[in-house]
Amino acid sequence: MCRFLTYSGPATVMSPLVFEASNSLVSQSKYAQKRTVPTNADGFGLGWYPLHDDPIPATFVNVDPAWSNRNLAMIASKLHTKQYFAHVRDASRGMPVSQANCHPFQHMQYLWMHNGCLEQFDCFRRTLLNSLSDRAFSLIKGNTDSEYAFALFMDKLEFNPAATVSDLEAAMVATIDKIMQIRTSCGANNNALLNFAVTDGVNTLVTRFATSASARPASLFIGQGQLVSDQGQIQLRPSTDTSEACVIVSSEPLTQDSEQWHKVMRNHIVIVSEDLRISQRPIPVGHQSL
Amino acid sequence: MCRFLTYSGPATVMSPLVFEASNSLVSQSKYAQKRTVPTNADGFGLGWYPLHDDPIPATFVNVDPAWSNRNLAMIASKLHTKQYFAHVRDASRGMPVSQANCHPFQHMQYLWMHNGCLEQFDCFRRTLLNSLSDRAFSLIKGNTDSEYAFALFMDKLEFNPAATVSDLEAAMVATIDKIMQIRTSCGANNNALLNFAVTDGVNTLVTRFATSASARPASLFIGQGQLVSDQGQIQLRPSTDTSEACVIVSSEPLTQDSEQWHKVMRNHIVIVSEDLRISQRPIPVGHQSL
Amino acid sequence: MCRFLTYSGPATVMSPLVFEASNSLVSQSKYAQKRTVPTNADGFGLGWYPLHDDPIPATFVNVDPAWSNRNLAMIASKLHTKQYFAHVRDASRGMPVSQANCHPFQHMQYLWMHNGCLEQFDCFRRTLLNSLSDRAFSLIKGNTDSEYAFALFMDKLEFNPAATVSDLEAAMVATIDKIMQIRTSCGANNNALLNFAVTDGVNTLVTRFATSASARPASLFIGQGQLVSDQGQIQLRPSTDTSEACVIVSSEPLTQDSEQWHKVMRNHIVIVSEDLRISQRPIPVGHQSL
Amino acid sequence: MCRFLTYSGPATVMSPLVFEASNSLVSQSKYAQKRTVPTNADGFGLGWYPLHDDPIPATFVNVDPAWSNRNLAMIASKLHTKQYFAHVRDASRGMPVSQANCHPFQHMQYLWMHNGCLEQFDCFRRTLLNSLSDRAFSLIKGNTDSEYAFALFMDKLEFNPAATVSDLEAAMVATIDKIMQIRTSCGANNNALLNFAVTDGVNTLVTRFATSASARPASLFIGQGQLVSDQGQIQLRPSTDTSEACVIVSSEPLTQDSEQWHKVMRNHIVIVSEDLRISQRPIPVGHQSL
Repeated sequence: MCRFLTYSGPATVMSPLVFEASNSLVSQSKYAQKRTVPTNADGFGLGWYPLHDDPIPATFVNVDPAWSNRNLAMIASKLHTKQYFAHVRDASRGMPVSQANCHPFQHMQYLWMHNGCLEQFDCFRRTLLNSLSDRAFSLIKGNTDSEYAFALFMDKLEFNPAATVSDLEAAMVATIDKIMQIRTSCGANNNALLNFAVTDGVNTLVTRFATSASARPASLFIGQGQLVSDQGQIQLRPSTDTSEACVIVSSEPLTQDSEQWHKVMRNHIVIVSEDLRISQRPIPVGHQSL
Repeated sequence: MCRFLTYSGPATVMSPLVFEASNSLVSQSKYAQKRTVPTNADGFGLGWYPLHDDPIPATFVNVDPAWSNRNLAMIASKLHTKQYFAHVRDASRGMPVSQANCHPFQHMQYLWMHNGCLEQFDCFRRTLLNSLSDRAFSLIKGNTDSEYAFALFMDKLEFNPAATVSDLEAAMVATIDKIMQIRTSCGANNNALLNFAVTDGVNTLVTRFATSASARPASLFIGQGQLVSDQGQIQLRPSTDTSEACVIVSSEPLTQDSEQWHKVMRNHIVIVSEDLRISQRPIPVGHQSL
Repeated sequence: MCRFLTYSGPATVMSPLVFEASNSLVSQSKYAQKRTVPTNADGFGLGWYPLHDDPIPATFVNVDPAWSNRNLAMIASKLHTKQYFAHVRDASRGMPVSQANCHPFQHMQYLWMHNGCLEQFDCFRRTLLNSLSDRAFSLIKGNTDSEYAFALFMDKLEFNPAATVSDLEAAMVATIDKIMQIRTSCGANNNALLNFAVTDGVNTLVTRFATSASARPASLFIGQGQLVSDQGQIQLRPSTDTSEACVIVSSEPLTQDSEQWHKVMRNHIVIVSEDLRISQRPIPVGHQSL
Repeated sequence: MCRFLTYSGPATVMSPLVFEASNSLVSQSKYAQKRTVPTNADGFGLGWYPLHDDPIPATFVNVDPAWSNRNLAMIASKLHTKQYFAHVRDASRGMPVSQANCHPFQHMQYLWMHNGCLEQFDCFRRTLLNSLSDRAFSLIKGNTDSEYAFALFMDKLEFNPAATVSDLEAAMVATIDKIMQIRTSCGANNNALLNFAVTDGVNTLVTRFATSASARPASLFIGQGQLVSDQGQIQLRPSTDTSEACVIVSSEPLTQDSEQWHKVMRNHIVIVSEDLRISQRPIPVGHQSL
């Protein structure tokens, strides 16, 4: 289990959401509010798209707690970007803490993050690995279920360098479907939490999904508005001016403007498109009952 | 604020208290029970005396959370020692996370740890530094109040290579006295927590001290008995056989045998001598009222 | 001893000089050509000025070898800047490897790097420390002669937030002068190498200086021209168009265009001003004989 | 390519060979003499057997250069052991620097190291992985050819907890044979260097092997004698007293007593048995011509 956020909007530094907001991602690395265990201190990561003409995103990850990494504070406060991912990790039992296991994962123009756990991963890890194409197999550098899921997603996307938002959505659904199939075929029947986020630098897709009908998915929220700092307090202010407004999808509301944050429905996918329009659709896999 | 433990007793590996006990030190790095903030994840350290003929202790420290460092788990479970210190750190505000700032600190045959904070350290840091001898000045490699206090202690001990337990006690009291004087002279009047531990490999001295009359010192406990593992559960069992029994002084009780753990009195010093006899005396500095 | 480079010119990513050039800075971290020991693997650092309206530079430093840090490769290839410093460190004897000891050092709008060693630093470290103002004293987080020299420079600059290029030059000369005085007064008479670099984001000043008349300073070169990649090979091509050309000051020539690189004279200071004009002047301190 | 050493002999600290000898392993991390590239700074590792009754060895590994890791210096100088492995790594092209990729690798009572490179590993990595049993597959945490080879070795050993020295030798030969078969079947025909070391805490086996008939294997030497420090200089002195003498197998002679060091023959295996007898036999695989 982890915490993450995605940002789409006007060019900005990352520190307001990563460090300064009252429930910033770094605050959630020590004091997460919507988890039993509040600590997410097994590494962190940023992924962002440069403003200049370069479609391939950068990632910056490390294994220390987000709150004590001096470079994270620097990079979050000095880089301008219109599209970024940020993640703080709580390693699932037995999964090593290493740079290769830090999110977001990147390949081509795509970034990927996961909040959740493919329970009983050890039972079906080899089966999943064997199902991958050679190209997807070669992407895997670490040991996490999350990275394996990304490799599977790239296969489902057929490594398409010009994927549309529909292609991304279809690949995401197919990824979840395949994970459920493989888990079932290996007898992994307890609940798995599949909050995945992917972006191509323009469109962002985030799922909130639990494999068991009776289980609650990990928390997920959408925030929308103009990001402002009022007397040192970061706020999302209602705005209809699309040049000012941003869209955030995150594990927990980051600011205290509760009316600006909306919970994502169970087993739904959120799609934030280039013009910052938000749509939410049920994921046509497994159980969708609320 | 941090958590620590000292062990004196029969030769043993460190993992029972550092990892396996129900409230082990590593557990306290994430779930400390007697602090408002449960997290002590800004580095850790072990200090121990080799069993072979070498009076100079080793230290092993690093900046990651204790729970995720693979080398800590190895070293704690494979080394035998009769005397060790262990520490997990929660960095005081603004103090960097670095190896040089990890406890225990070592010089000659002495190990030193601190749980607490010399509040307003910035106000009197330079004055304290100037008060040191050149030799003590040269010991300081990091930025913490704790390390400065150790340098001061070495001065008060006159770098005595053959200090008796009385010398150690006198130097400890003089260190606390000097810290109080310097703080007062610089106008640092709010409460400071001075739980210090020092050992020469044979005797161990630990203080529980708050500079303000009205303030509560950080928690400190003494545990005594035979350390056993009963169906995977680490216990302190009553024992009168001195070849079996050990003495532990720690920020929190480590096992659930509440009758084996005793709270140290406010502004007292605990002395564990070579034969594992325990004495407790008021520290004749400042305010001793409960 | 270390290796460094400064860049002033059109907005660019840092990777051509840091990674791609035939004698790039990262290449010099393993295979430096103008040192007896080719290895500079005790940490690295970047300092750069954001393109958006923010005069305070960012720094990114770490203790691993530059060649193996995955984040350095990311940041060097994804950030655009018009002014940056880059450094690879070879720790002087006994000086710890830590983030606090990595260059460049930053305060206010200023960045500082050092290639060289204040020999016998231990002899006069405390004297130097005592000579600092409280404000300069509080800047020091690590243990290196280089950082102490920066604190001294800030004092000589009187922490001026609007220093002119003349102010910077005067403060640099005064810093070197003071270091020589303190060294002499403490009996530190063997040669010290003082290649210092400082920038305010607009002007860059770099010294090539040896304290002994008979000793050779560390190497220092100026490169000038348009930075191009020709069939994967980074080159400096002659250019009179100031919108295209850049100025590099570095410990070693970075590309193989030997006619584009000029050696800086002994005990001189190089000044690269806003319009990329280069001037070189003798440092009016100590011995200037060639 | 890397450098390593194995030690079998009287209980000792590790620092004489790891740090103090004139061509110590740490010296070889920066100034290796028998390689084109002298640097082996992509991590290091120690593996050792506790003196007390515990057959499972400890490992201590990290990713920094061996020369700058303060914990390595501590552990090497404070632990007593009769059997240890030490390794400094130079990462093969494209292989990440991570703790999981540091040698020695450990499973059950076995330690494993590799000096060399399975060239074209990417071509046959998946084939090799697929050839492993589930148990061996689950051992792999990192990305190196060396760790894959260890997993293969454990399969060839059938995870035998009571393997004799003959079993170990047979498994080693079978491992090399299988690697050659898989490489050939995947068209990987250029030379691969297979200097492997394995120990069970009692017997040590080390190979010096090149897959191509015309290629020279990586260097390998046997040192024998009593390890003494004469005026600060570590020496191997001739000794017939088996209670005093030790046997070292290492990539390069560690001391300057050239008569105490013998080169291992091409494509041979060295076996150091419990009583420190040394035997050397050709490896009955592929080409043995000199």
